[in-house]
Amino acid sequence: MTISLSAELWPEVQPDAARRLMLAGVESFARRGYHATTTRDIASAAGMSPAALYVHFPSKAALLFAISKSGHQQTLDLVEDVAKRADEPRERMRRIVADFVAWHARRHTVARVVQYELQALPEQEYQVVADLRRRIEHLVRGVIEDGVAQGQFVVADVKTAARAVLSLGVDVARWYSERTGKTPKALGREYADLTLRMLGAQP
Amino acid sequence: MTISLSAELWPEVQPDAARRLMLAGVESFARRGYHATTTRDIASAAGMSPAALYVHFPSKAALLFAISKSGHQQTLDLVEDVAKRADEPRERMRRIVADFVAWHARRHTVARVVQYELQALPEQEYQVVADLRRRIEHLVRGVIEDGVAQGQFVVADVKTAARAVLSLGVDVARWYSERTGKTPKALGREYADLTLRMLGAQP
Repeated sequence: MTISLSAELWPEVQPDAARRLMLAGVESFARRGYHATTTRDIASAAGMSPAALYVHFPSKAALLFAISKSGHQQTLDLVEDVAKRADEPRERMRRIVADFVAWHARRHTVARVVQYELQALPEQEYQVVADLRRRIEHLVRGVIEDGVAQGQFVVADVKTAARAVLSLGVDVARWYSERTGKTPKALGREYADLTLRMLGAQP
Repeated sequence: MTISLSAELWPEVQPDAARRLMLAGVESFARRGYHATTTRDIASAAGMSPAALYVHFPSKAALLFAISKSGHQQTLDLVEDVAKRADEPRERMRRIVADFVAWHARRHTVARVVQYELQALPEQEYQVVADLRRRIEHLVRGVIEDGVAQGQFVVADVKTAARAVLSLGVDVARWYSERTGKTPKALGREYADLTLRMLGAQP
């Protein structure tokens, strides 16, 4: 179970021991916060020795960076994948929100760590992640600008609108749980409709 | 400065020493997380001895509860204040969002602790806060239902719509900073327009 979950969360990470440590890190950080978690806690949650952890991650900060970078890269990939399509802006926005919201609902524990422990990253690592965040915002702004140019969207301020679109999706990670009674996919579809209306389009 | 800030944040709390401890708690929890902060850290940030802290709060959890309860009570008060007016639903929603968003922007550090450290509350205290949260959601849903009944709003699912309205406001605390270049009040107004459109009304 644990092994297949970590492989599902980080298919791009090898070997499996590194993924298991990332999963143990996510669980520990989500439960007690980054600062209250030791590398010993994480290693033991992954069934390894602290020395084995250092083989894969030189520090607790390096582990957090791996989790944070991967989470941001995955969301950037899904936004990029849709943003560059030839579809009309309304359709691109619908897919971006549906995918982005479903990602944050499905991976809500990972997403919470990714979103709430940003300040704990060392400066250089923070800049790498901040750059991924800027690229995500930039793509979303681009779709809104296209929609405004083509008369599909009406917004007072593109920057605020893009922020609100992403904010709605990110916050899903805070409140979503398995008890929500709505699948990530269904929630993504509903949020896509809400967002399109927010941007002045008819869903 | 510190004294006047704590008095502004918690006008209902007495004496001033208790407010200073709450402010020191907010700053410490925001920086390092609840679990990594000791009562000694908080007392020393407030310029007091740990013994002096215990005069006002019997435990770190009691301090977190005071911060969390007060934050939720303040937001409930502002939502309640508007929700019970005789204004039409569109106008009530506009004011609720404007006030709720401005509160989360202005008090973003307090709001982050209030929103992100909920799980650290002991069960009984958690239930008190959860009840305040349910009352806030209930009021927002009521305004949406009124708007739907009067033909001002069109939503697919009232519960999801209420969740999205509050979610947009809460997430402001995560990303807002003094460098945002927009006052809490101006942001509140823009978000009110975005929200009204999201609910199918014309701003």
